Amino acid sequence: MREFLKQLTTAVAWATTEPHAMQAYRQDQCLIAEAGQPLAVVRPATVGEVVAVVDLCRTHAVPLVPRGAGTGLAGGANALDGCVLLLLDAMDQILEIDQVAQSARVQPGVVNADLDKAAGEVGLWYAPDPGSRALSSIGGNVATNAGGMCCAKYGVTRDHILALTAVLGTGEVLRTGTATRKDVAGLDLKHLLIGSEGTLGVIVEATVRLRPRPQRLSTVAATFPTVQSAIDVVQAFGREFNAAATELMDRTTVCAVNAMTQMGLDEAAGAVLIAQFDGADASQQAERCAAMAEGAGAEAFATDDQDDGSALMEARRAALPSLERMGSTLLDDVCVTPHRLPALIDAIERIALSHGVTIGTFGHAADGNLHPTIVFDPADDRQRVAAAAAFDAIIAAALDLGGTATGEHGVGSLKTPYIRRQVGDVGTSLMHRIKAAFDPSGILNPGRGY
Amino acid sequence: MREFLKQLTTAVAWATTEPHAMQAYRQDQCLIAEAGQPLAVVRPATVGEVVAVVDLCRTHAVPLVPRGAGTGLAGGANALDGCVLLLLDAMDQILEIDQVAQSARVQPGVVNADLDKAAGEVGLWYAPDPGSRALSSIGGNVATNAGGMCCAKYGVTRDHILALTAVLGTGEVLRTGTATRKDVAGLDLKHLLIGSEGTLGVIVEATVRLRPRPQRLSTVAATFPTVQSAIDVVQAFGREFNAAATELMDRTTVCAVNAMTQMGLDEAAGAVLIAQFDGADASQQAERCAAMAEGAGAEAFATDDQDDGSALMEARRAALPSLERMGSTLLDDVCVTPHRLPALIDAIERIALSHGVTIGTFGHAADGNLHPTIVFDPADDRQRVAAAAAFDAIIAAALDLGGTATGEHGVGSLKTPYIRRQVGDVGTSLMHRIKAAFDPSGILNPGRGY
Ligand SMILES: Cc1cc2nc3c(=O)[nH]c(=O)nc-3n(C[C@H](O)[C@H](O)[C@H](O)COP(=O)(O)OP(=O)(O)OC[C@H]3O[C@@H](n4cnc5c(N)ncnc54)[C@H](O)[C@@H]3O)c2cc1C
Ligand SMILES: Cc1cc2nc3c(=O)[nH]c(=O)nc-3n(C[C@H](O)[C@H](O)[C@H](O)COP(=O)(O)OP(=O)(O)OC[C@H]3O[C@@H](n4cnc5c(N)ncnc54)[C@H](O)[C@@H]3O)c2cc1C
Repeated sequence: MREFLKQLTTAVAWATTEPHAMQAYRQDQCLIAEAGQPLAVVRPATVGEVVAVVDLCRTHAVPLVPRGAGTGLAGGANALDGCVLLLLDAMDQILEIDQVAQSARVQPGVVNADLDKAAGEVGLWYAPDPGSRALSSIGGNVATNAGGMCCAKYGVTRDHILALTAVLGTGEVLRTGTATRKDVAGLDLKHLLIGSEGTLGVIVEATVRLRPRPQRLSTVAATFPTVQSAIDVVQAFGREFNAAATELMDRTTVCAVNAMTQMGLDEAAGAVLIAQFDGADASQQAERCAAMAEGAGAEAFATDDQDDGSALMEARRAALPSLERMGSTLLDDVCVTPHRLPALIDAIERIALSHGVTIGTFGHAADGNLHPTIVFDPADDRQRVAAAAAFDAIIAAALDLGGTATGEHGVGSLKTPYIRRQVGDVGTSLMHRIKAAFDPSGILNPGRGY
Repeated sequence: MREFLKQLTTAVAWATTEPHAMQAYRQDQCLIAEAGQPLAVVRPATVGEVVAVVDLCRTHAVPLVPRGAGTGLAGGANALDGCVLLLLDAMDQILEIDQVAQSARVQPGVVNADLDKAAGEVGLWYAPDPGSRALSSIGGNVATNAGGMCCAKYGVTRDHILALTAVLGTGEVLRTGTATRKDVAGLDLKHLLIGSEGTLGVIVEATVRLRPRPQRLSTVAATFPTVQSAIDVVQAFGREFNAAATELMDRTTVCAVNAMTQMGLDEAAGAVLIAQFDGADASQQAERCAAMAEGAGAEAFATDDQDDGSALMEARRAALPSLERMGSTLLDDVCVTPHRLPALIDAIERIALSHGVTIGTFGHAADGNLHPTIVFDPADDRQRVAAAAAFDAIIAAALDLGGTATGEHGVGSLKTPYIRRQVGDVGTSLMHRIKAAFDPSGILNPGRGY
């Protein structure tokens, strides 16, 4: 082991085995998932250094946990006992922005918002916009297939990845995908790597698709008497138009956001909907949406002011941090087909009542993807147990409605117990056989994801 | 072997081992790919019968070749010597159309156009529209990740598949995917099955996404002095709007289509572009496209007449059959990033000249996906050799331009030699390891795809 650590720390630009220095990297943002004690934390600067680390871990059978920005919400980047933590944040170069092909080639540590900013300088847009975009990395976004606000109209991270380079568990460097719009040459390894949560390969480069930057955004804020009435409007509107974002917050969330941000959202409302529209007819869409909301009993206003629009979206982005100020949180991430949202909301409300817990629900209404967030006092044993039971019950309710245990945050270490139920024995064991094809020594983020 | 055949033929609703009866199923539409002599042809009626066939083949190490409608253009459904041909065409039920969720659940043998027709009866649309949609099966479309005319705007088959059921090479039945818009629960087995060309599993059920049926279609036909000028217009137009189809035919193709259909397209033109537009502003888009074409020296007209529009699209669909009447054909299927199309066209023209062969080129301009089709006399040795060399050279040119050897038709048995060059050794050997995870006995369409 001494020999291994010596080789490891000399193989990379930056490394530490000092417990205090390693502490900062042991956990992602899922504070309830366990985090072990790493052997070492390494920060390679090149693909060659990543290969060297993988080769050493493989030879010495040491688990390797890749980490982007550590904003994950499923414990997927948490340290395992005796692992090497592989930080990708120093590989943060935008290698190329191709204006003509409308694509960019980036290292994995590039922060989502930095890529979008660079694209914006030439009139282009990197659409995938997780709430964490100011912090999270493209490598992490690819590894989790991150969603965001714009998915119903523009798709998830998967829909914006043209090609990937990854270091497999064998130490081999795989290039997969092409910059073309269509490609059916062989099995689709690119789609398999997307969302694989660090279990198949270390993503060391991505070619992503850029789009023309939307010019004008119009925004609607509407306060509805009930969550159900808000959902009805989102669905009726969706039959006519394609909104760029349709974000929902229930009353618990609205109160939490007000407490943190002094936004002064209407706390008497059952739900607040914040929707955004782009394209040539953005204003008309916003007017139409506001009118439909008013027809359903909401108070609504539409604005073309860009700053007001951004402020409203910031209020929505504040949902999770605001709820986190109220206590410990258990954040869920269930997704159903949109027409089953009313049934899911109903189930969540019944679960809150029957388990005696506070649940603030917010999420991406047009996608059917909700984040019911259980707020509890960790010092209170009864609340801790009730929170965990409510978390289980919400996932069970989503699965019973034909939905998924995770719409965008991933499985990580938090949700592995639910995957076998959702995916089944045949699927789960097949996933393990596929992992063995990429990572015969089983060193890459073992035990995570499935 | 006698015992095997006895068990096999009693395991399924319909089976034959009679050479004459088997003849009709030995080949797909890639007439230049080799086809072997099957042991038996079986036509299961249920998932249980498919499982029984897989189990028997597995136990007796007999290769199994799935076959949908046999319209494939890569020899992927051709018989292998001593194989069992598995016909899926009797499993042709539309099991459910869910109007609210906008999805359909179908058996693999359902013909694409039949599904679309059924969807149309409730105002919905199954978008993926390969030229073969009147014949090809959903199972085959999924297995090849078929493209079509509407891809640039609506995506390929992959983008319309919500969930799949497949019988693996182990005989296990895998269900993968959910009907939700987002799902990150475990590795994405669904995306891996899509485009796997019968090598990983037999697709026995698919849940597909339907969309609201486009109401009005407007169509433009434009005759350009050169192919390059047509491409320039497609690209300039694409920066403003998203056409539902942008189909291109060069002069050789136009003359062939005229000869077969008496359409009377302008044979003096360097290229004909047929573009279609949908949505509320379809007419305006068509007018704008026609004006841009005229600005680039084309003769163009726009029409809102649905029958005229359909007739023009039929002319484009006649491209391949028309060229096939001129001689034997070698149909290629290269794809580059759209801005590299001019360079690809240029390369194809030079290849035609230097190899002394006739090449008719048509394809999906906005996707960068062309079908250069080499027409030759199979009785003339020199032409046969030159045609094969030109086919190679076209693929090499596409790869040199960062493109792919196959944009939508697949690898089958025709293009395996090119895949290792495109995908590389690491990728190719990984594909084989993944195949082994799905199909440890190696019975499913062995040697095809990669
Ligand atoms: C306030 C807040 C809002 C959020 N909003 C959203 C949202 O709207 N939508 C959404 O989907 N998520 C959201 N998230 C979750 C999180 O930001 C995403 O999962 C993000 O994609 C993680 O990126 P990261 O760089 O932080 O990855 P990390 O947390 O470092 O890692 C996440 C996973 O990916 C793996 N990984 C990271 N980098 C690599 C690599 N280069 N190669 C291989 N594996 C790698 C890790 O091993 C781990 O399993 C939010 C999180 C926060 C804190
Ligand atoms: C005139 C014409 C136009 C065409 N236009 C297009 C076009 O625009 N775009 C395009 O992409 N293709 C096109 N094609 C090619 C072809 O139609 C497609 O590849 C189609 O998807 C094949 O479907 P099929 O049912 O005929 O499959 P088959 O030819 O029977 O099989 C194709 C492959 O899929 C496998 N397979 C079939 N069914 C299953 C199943 N249930 N489970 C597992 N594996 C299975 C087979 O083993 C084989 O490898 C065209 C073909 C013709 C003749």
